[in-house]
Amino acid sequence: MSNAPIEFFFDFSSPYGFLAARKIDALAAEFGREVVWKPYLMGVAMKQTQVAPLLTIPLKGDYAYRDVMRHCSHEGLEGKIPGQFPFISVAAARAFYALADEDVAAAKALAHALYARAFLEGQSIAKPEEVLAVAEDLGHERESLSAKMNSPETKDRLRAEVDATLERGIFGSPFIIVDGEPFWGYDRLGDIREWLERGGW
Amino acid sequence: MSNAPIEFFFDFSSPYGFLAARKIDALAAEFGREVVWKPYLMGVAMKQTQVAPLLTIPLKGDYAYRDVMRHCSHEGLEGKIPGQFPFISVAAARAFYALADEDVAAAKALAHALYARAFLEGQSIAKPEEVLAVAEDLGHERESLSAKMNSPETKDRLRAEVDATLERGIFGSPFIIVDGEPFWGYDRLGDIREWLERGGW
Repeated sequence: MSNAPIEFFFDFSSPYGFLAARKIDALAAEFGREVVWKPYLMGVAMKQTQVAPLLTIPLKGDYAYRDVMRHCSHEGLEGKIPGQFPFISVAAARAFYALADEDVAAAKALAHALYARAFLEGQSIAKPEEVLAVAEDLGHERESLSAKMNSPETKDRLRAEVDATLERGIFGSPFIIVDGEPFWGYDRLGDIREWLERGGW
Repeated sequence: MSNAPIEFFFDFSSPYGFLAARKIDALAAEFGREVVWKPYLMGVAMKQTQVAPLLTIPLKGDYAYRDVMRHCSHEGLEGKIPGQFPFISVAAARAFYALADEDVAAAKALAHALYARAFLEGQSIAKPEEVLAVAEDLGHERESLSAKMNSPETKDRLRAEVDATLERGIFGSPFIIVDGEPFWGYDRLGDIREWLERGGW
């Protein structure tokens, strides 16, 4: 039985990514697995799939909104969607990678806080200053984090992560890979549990 | 606690509809519920959602193919996709409604057989004669069923069912409504079970 890390791909603008982020580490830990978090920019894949952002699609958008709220309520949460939606999540993803190499736990904590700001408070996390404000609340030093977010290293890192998702056929959020097996969607956490329990199906 | 029938909307060209059709009646029966089966034509809704058929979308199509096969394998089945795919399911849906008013069980049995022909044998069920061949194997008289399929009543019935789905915001397959609550996708059967157990969330 493998104990390779699980890969968790998500977009900070994805409410289903928000919901999955609250559960994936605990689920993996039950099976002695780590989770590598990989924020990326879903919009780049959407240009290939030519699919519009979910909440903007006629019929599907109404359903998805209801479904997101229903799942939040199932988790005891009152979900909100930021007024400006969908939004660009480049700043949030850069902030994550600016922290991740030195301190994965800090990067994950920031991700949780950013997601909560967006989907529990309904506030924007699109702008760099909005991302930095959330980071400051967690004790990060604004100027140095801002410098890191804007460094060529961080920009290249995010670009490389996005390129890698395209090459690997990753296109949604959450998109979770367990031992090479891809699972797309918050509603697949049950499948992932079963896969981990049985080491396949 | 309601015991109103569950509505099961599906398209005969949908492999996830095929998978759901094998489970929905048993799931509902556990909670004392009947299921009203409503084949319809997803393509009409797709013109509104402007979404291409799943298996034809770059990236998503490859994933969906793998996911369908994985779920078939999970159910102990060897799934197949007909060579001509996606296909028009008008004939199959008409045959269902031609039988349903007089004998719901016969209509459901035909639906199972049509789905098996398509997604277990990988054979076409697009043409009326292909649908009639499946019906004959089940003991239906070819000429009379053919006449019923082509009757104005049956054609109007299917058109009315499709119109009703559009009005109600139904767009996928399977699409299942429990006490007014919509659930889209084969992967929501677990949610539906929980919803039925708890009478909501």
